[in-house]
Amino acid sequence: MPKSFIPIAFPQQTPPPEGAVILAADIGGTKADLAFFEIKNSEPVLVKEQRYPSKEWNSFVEMAQDFNKNTTRPQRICVSFAGPVRDGKAHGTNLHWEIDSREISEKLNIRPVFLINDLEANCYGLAALKTDDLLMICPGKNHEAGNAAVISPGTGLGEGGLFWDGQAYRPFATEGGHSHFAARNELDWELFLFLEKKYGHVSWERVVSGPGICMIFSFFRDVKGWEAPGILKTEMKAHDPAAAIAIAATEGCPVCQETLRLFMKYLAEEAANLALKLKATGGIYLGGGILPKIWNETHQAIFNEYFFAVGRLDPLVEAAPVYLILNQKTALWGAGYYGAFGGV
Amino acid sequence: MPKSFIPIAFPQQTPPPEGAVILAADIGGTKADLAFFEIKNSEPVLVKEQRYPSKEWNSFVEMAQDFNKNTTRPQRICVSFAGPVRDGKAHGTNLHWEIDSREISEKLNIRPVFLINDLEANCYGLAALKTDDLLMICPGKNHEAGNAAVISPGTGLGEGGLFWDGQAYRPFATEGGHSHFAARNELDWELFLFLEKKYGHVSWERVVSGPGICMIFSFFRDVKGWEAPGILKTEMKAHDPAAAIAIAATEGCPVCQETLRLFMKYLAEEAANLALKLKATGGIYLGGGILPKIWNETHQAIFNEYFFAVGRLDPLVEAAPVYLILNQKTALWGAGYYGAFGGV
Repeated sequence: MPKSFIPIAFPQQTPPPEGAVILAADIGGTKADLAFFEIKNSEPVLVKEQRYPSKEWNSFVEMAQDFNKNTTRPQRICVSFAGPVRDGKAHGTNLHWEIDSREISEKLNIRPVFLINDLEANCYGLAALKTDDLLMICPGKNHEAGNAAVISPGTGLGEGGLFWDGQAYRPFATEGGHSHFAARNELDWELFLFLEKKYGHVSWERVVSGPGICMIFSFFRDVKGWEAPGILKTEMKAHDPAAAIAIAATEGCPVCQETLRLFMKYLAEEAANLALKLKATGGIYLGGGILPKIWNETHQAIFNEYFFAVGRLDPLVEAAPVYLILNQKTALWGAGYYGAFGGV
Repeated sequence: MPKSFIPIAFPQQTPPPEGAVILAADIGGTKADLAFFEIKNSEPVLVKEQRYPSKEWNSFVEMAQDFNKNTTRPQRICVSFAGPVRDGKAHGTNLHWEIDSREISEKLNIRPVFLINDLEANCYGLAALKTDDLLMICPGKNHEAGNAAVISPGTGLGEGGLFWDGQAYRPFATEGGHSHFAARNELDWELFLFLEKKYGHVSWERVVSGPGICMIFSFFRDVKGWEAPGILKTEMKAHDPAAAIAIAATEGCPVCQETLRLFMKYLAEEAANLALKLKATGGIYLGGGILPKIWNETHQAIFNEYFFAVGRLDPLVEAAPVYLILNQKTALWGAGYYGAFGGV
């Protein structure tokens, strides 16, 4: 088990020999990060990394060959992938790809090749975090050892579980972001009806994600008739539209502020659902690329207002410390660590 | 680990010596079952049991003294309790009691005394089940080993988790029944508004439980203006009102049939939420006292209709086999088994 600030249980106690190189990848719906981790003093250390736009590549093998050219061949591979993994295979929920660990192993002639779910990777990546990779959002009252969870809005809404076995956390993938969205007031209900018309099934992922931010924005603009500044339309076309909305919100745009208020409310409500479903008194970790970029005092106040509003079970939710993961490469680190300590 | 049809991991591998007696109890919001389990051939065997009305007793100690009179003193005690357990203490969510394992140990002069959550007990109790204690509701497609879960409507809505460690299930308590209720159509939303006025926070427990059946019935009668037969009012006052509604439904009462249709829909939707949140491909177990009494082909069809309606993640929910637990003493057996194999 690696020496970690947050104790995570891995299948293997010891890493490969000193100097061994692991090719780790974190493949999301939008971007893919590839990296080499080298074993130094029995811990994986990041030595090289590169980002690829996922949708512009047809397979992980091509990406790996590109990343790998002119370097020594790695001894192991671990890929974190945004989609349910089964028998070493997965297809992306928000990506057109399929991925197969055996095929990768054959084509690149490297083994073992581990394929893990991106939220599992996020959970394993907690092993790599230092105290300054985390921002404490709520300290938690009357600490009680127990399960923990990661909730991670990005292209989709990832949720991961950490089972507390008495000594360490054992990560597991979940698909909790696809559970039913729960409207709690008339505005939520109007939004639900708007999303239902568009998608059929309305899950939490439809509102607590980058595309979710855009949908909430569309709802306010197109259904509720809020005015959006002309410049925003240009910005949303030129850049990541969710990021453009977040920037406009900080600049005082009312419809963007209201959009982010709802996004934070839904994040908090779904984080509370997850805390209750897993009895995650050990901690709730907010992950993904969006939150560290937009977090501020206003958003923190909204989060606190809705996270604790779960009726009679308030004390359980209050017991859980809540952390914002500032390290946006946590899943990549998780893939590196799993590459080192994963089951062979 | 006991020899079980469903492999459950217990803290201890071996039980106390042959002939040792365990006092086990399952204390719910309405009733309490007490039993002696004797170790025979290294397994706990039920040798005596008695039911007590929880609300008419002031403490477990008084109940245990009553149950225990004129018999040999047991070597161990394990109590399953309907409420969050912490540091060997708990207070009931739907009961006025407090309970403290150290106090029980001192007053009865017996140790160890284990106190576990009722859903943990339900999960541990799976170790005691035989194949004919389970009714298969859905076989599950393309079986994938993984976590499992118990969802158990009774006085409240209990939910328990079973973490799959590769060899066996490790039970854990959850408070998932208190997560936010998700309306999915106009009728659900009207019901939500009715319940919100009454309770403030509307959790799944407010609809998927015995009292939930009564509230859905009140909603149809008082808000939607459905007629209820006069005899039903008398029956509901004289007996368990949820049971009276269920009986009237089988006798063709339209408002009662519609009440149970909604109850089954909500059970199915929340079971799907739980399956997704835990990625419970190993199985979903429907527990508690209500379901075995009311289960029929109509209800099964309603369950199937809504359990699988989770949008893009249908395959995950379809993978999970679903079982109805017919043995209504599963939590009591779980307390007996935990008494035998629990951590000292």
